[in-house]
Amino acid sequence: KMDHAKIFQGIEEDYENLKEILREAVAIQSVSSDPSKRDETIRMVHWMKAKLEEIGATCSLQDLGNQTLEGKEIPLPPVLFGTLGTDKSKKTLLVYGHVDVQPAQKSDGWDTEPFELVEKDGKLFGRGSSDDKGPVLCWVHAIRAAQKNNVELPINIKFCFEAMEESGSVGLEDLLKREQKGFLSDVDFTCISDSYWLGTKKPCLTYGLRGICSFFVEVSGIKQDLHSGVFGGVVHEPLADLFWIMSQLTTVENRISIPSIYDDVAPMSEVEARIYKEIEFDVKEFRESVGASKLPTEDKETLLIRRWREPSLTVHGVEGAFYGKGEKTVIPSKVIGKFSIRIVPNMTPEKVNKIVGDYLNELWKKRGSPNTFNAKPGHSAMSWVADVNDPNFLAGARAMKLVHGVEPDRIREGCSIPITLTFQELTGKSVLLLPIGAADDMAHSQNEKNNKFNYIEGVKTLLSYIMELGSA
Amino acid sequence: KMDHAKIFQGIEEDYENLKEILREAVAIQSVSSDPSKRDETIRMVHWMKAKLEEIGATCSLQDLGNQTLEGKEIPLPPVLFGTLGTDKSKKTLLVYGHVDVQPAQKSDGWDTEPFELVEKDGKLFGRGSSDDKGPVLCWVHAIRAAQKNNVELPINIKFCFEAMEESGSVGLEDLLKREQKGFLSDVDFTCISDSYWLGTKKPCLTYGLRGICSFFVEVSGIKQDLHSGVFGGVVHEPLADLFWIMSQLTTVENRISIPSIYDDVAPMSEVEARIYKEIEFDVKEFRESVGASKLPTEDKETLLIRRWREPSLTVHGVEGAFYGKGEKTVIPSKVIGKFSIRIVPNMTPEKVNKIVGDYLNELWKKRGSPNTFNAKPGHSAMSWVADVNDPNFLAGARAMKLVHGVEPDRIREGCSIPITLTFQELTGKSVLLLPIGAADDMAHSQNEKNNKFNYIEGVKTLLSYIMELGSA
Ligand SMILES: [Zn+2]
Ligand SMILES: [Zn+2]
Ligand SMILES: [Zn+2]
Ligand SMILES: [Zn+2]
Repeated sequence: KMDHAKIFQGIEEDYENLKEILREAVAIQSVSSDPSKRDETIRMVHWMKAKLEEIGATCSLQDLGNQTLEGKEIPLPPVLFGTLGTDKSKKTLLVYGHVDVQPAQKSDGWDTEPFELVEKDGKLFGRGSSDDKGPVLCWVHAIRAAQKNNVELPINIKFCFEAMEESGSVGLEDLLKREQKGFLSDVDFTCISDSYWLGTKKPCLTYGLRGICSFFVEVSGIKQDLHSGVFGGVVHEPLADLFWIMSQLTTVENRISIPSIYDDVAPMSEVEARIYKEIEFDVKEFRESVGASKLPTEDKETLLIRRWREPSLTVHGVEGAFYGKGEKTVIPSKVIGKFSIRIVPNMTPEKVNKIVGDYLNELWKKRGSPNTFNAKPGHSAMSWVADVNDPNFLAGARAMKLVHGVEPDRIREGCSIPITLTFQELTGKSVLLLPIGAADDMAHSQNEKNNKFNYIEGVKTLLSYIMELGSA
Repeated sequence: KMDHAKIFQGIEEDYENLKEILREAVAIQSVSSDPSKRDETIRMVHWMKAKLEEIGATCSLQDLGNQTLEGKEIPLPPVLFGTLGTDKSKKTLLVYGHVDVQPAQKSDGWDTEPFELVEKDGKLFGRGSSDDKGPVLCWVHAIRAAQKNNVELPINIKFCFEAMEESGSVGLEDLLKREQKGFLSDVDFTCISDSYWLGTKKPCLTYGLRGICSFFVEVSGIKQDLHSGVFGGVVHEPLADLFWIMSQLTTVENRISIPSIYDDVAPMSEVEARIYKEIEFDVKEFRESVGASKLPTEDKETLLIRRWREPSLTVHGVEGAFYGKGEKTVIPSKVIGKFSIRIVPNMTPEKVNKIVGDYLNELWKKRGSPNTFNAKPGHSAMSWVADVNDPNFLAGARAMKLVHGVEPDRIREGCSIPITLTFQELTGKSVLLLPIGAADDMAHSQNEKNNKFNYIEGVKTLLSYIMELGSA
């Protein structure tokens, strides 16, 4: 049995070293959406491969071919596969993470250079420090800590690190499908550390994600944009029709106006109701972080239920109308309204698309406009929810309790992480989302940071989780 | 008394020469909105000055200083003033026109090079051939025709040609105000040839223009754009509020829903009603040119009345929301809806702004959203309507009858030409809009053209108008 106290102390004492490694990672500008940074993005994968090899993993780079970006054909970064341990008597954990990052420039409003790690007040500022280079490195540090202390890992570990996550994970799903009977065939558990705590103080495990159904509502009827002075008053304006349609989708309190849309929402079990009751969540702090004067509901449980286990509808905008500053005297000829619905168990994209399509066509009939109407679904993704009592989750919970001294909250996220479902479907096994970073890490935004605390405790937590999986 | 037949024949015989002069003018790329073409735009004014001097006008260039365009400070093109005749016993006509043009590139969808005049099937294709270089040159050709035939002009003529019309006539109004007691002090009539026939066959005089009141409707309430997965369902979405507000402005038949907005519309006199009855206008052709399957009204008189002498409301678009192609999972934090109302006599911007502001604020109260709402008026312009029986209009009508053999229609335009009101107010005298080009000239669009017919008859018409003014 391992001596936690001693190993944990070692991790803390090793902090300057762990920070230097994160600094190196942050310095590589692996912005996957920027073709001019594609070389750096590929270099980041190689850098990561070397890190995995240092802890003894056998690695391979999975070539994904080329992609066309901004009119140029450029190579996709390869996916990094790693294998640490092949003991048939042990179970196998698959770890997923990504080493590409969102774009960042100091001029966007950063207080420091985004690609230079800066420690200030216990915070490690830098692009990727939290999403997702920091957590990815926590795995490496955790395993090295075990090795330094001659602790044998009770499981085999496989790594799947990609560098296109921030750009739609191009090519990854196809690769994983091809590897279902290969690299993925012996996976018993999957763990992804690429989400966030619900707040800033208490750790949590994420067991649910909402899915999404997107919609396009197109109205046309005049053959080109017209001058509103010359034609105003004597044509049926497509944008006026669209505004009316878009105004019929939600109530002022942001409930969905589409009949029967809530019908398939899974009933709440008593166990689940207790989770919501016990969760630590400060509504006032949340409201203030959003900058709203009032929320549709300020009851903690109702709010979280609406965020995580009920559908919601958001209107995003209009394509084809005037969007610039100032004024333009145009009657737009063809406009496309964009909205999406977040879906939850037991809703299916098929049924949602049908219900919404029917509702839109009925609205259009009611409108009685002679313009041309075309509503169609865009991309969709299923929701995901896991059993919080499966051995993978229980191991994660024990690890967090051990490190933080408190039982973690079980939370969901309102958004999709499509790869979660992919791993679950291809391995047929449990996927755990184990967040390392805090809610205020500002992933995708200016001044992204990872707390020194979260980074160190993250190493301890992942090590503890690996050890706990041995008895799972 | 002049020998019309002989002079008109001379104009026709001079066609190749008139075309070459238009070719020269079209070849100068005087795109006033493009800073890289500012030198050409200024060159165009100088070229025009030489043309006026050739017919004996005394010219001056009115410096307007600099402007900042796309971050660069560049000189404004000067305004060209010209004076032809200073006989105190004669009345004085002021001619306004512009020698700048809209941008054009062959790749926009032109069949020919936009800055090379091409004659095809009796049409002279080229940017500016109709708006407004062609009509401006018609004045010069008309006067030269009189001079060639030793016909003394019965009036003095002043010219005011600018080269910033397509870019908001920057500086012109201030210059004219300064010149109210100077250059403009002895003007008896003004004539502007910068609009279009109602159709393609019958000439017309334009006696009315609608004004405009623009509005901005801003809704905010969250401090930054939010992820719809994470926050969808638990905030009041500003864009949903805005869509609802914007949907409450017009009916499906494009009538304005704002109470009392039609109250100040001037009652229709019998004389005016007869104008609408007699006007030549093909509704079916109009509907097809717009590309609509149906119009809110297909009754000729009602349609023209709605276009010219009733207010109309157009929704233009939304600033701050997602406007790109595809999907984006954003909850926009601050959105601004844009709409404008075309106003007619006896509506005033002050009252319209008040009525609309009150209505919007009332709607917002009805909406009951906790978001922040701010409706404010943008720019406005008065409508303009002239007396079709004043001597200036009667002279124009006689000239058209002489050249075309038919009584011209008296029409209005739905849009604003703000300079019309400026001249009327500063001179205190009648302003006539005398269109030379046909309705299908495609000003501002691809393949702009002027018919050979309209160009030649335009010279005859302007000459006849000048002669008729002598007895006005
Ligand atoms: Zn991430
Ligand atoms: Zn990310
Ligand atoms: Zn013009
Ligand atoms: Zn124009």
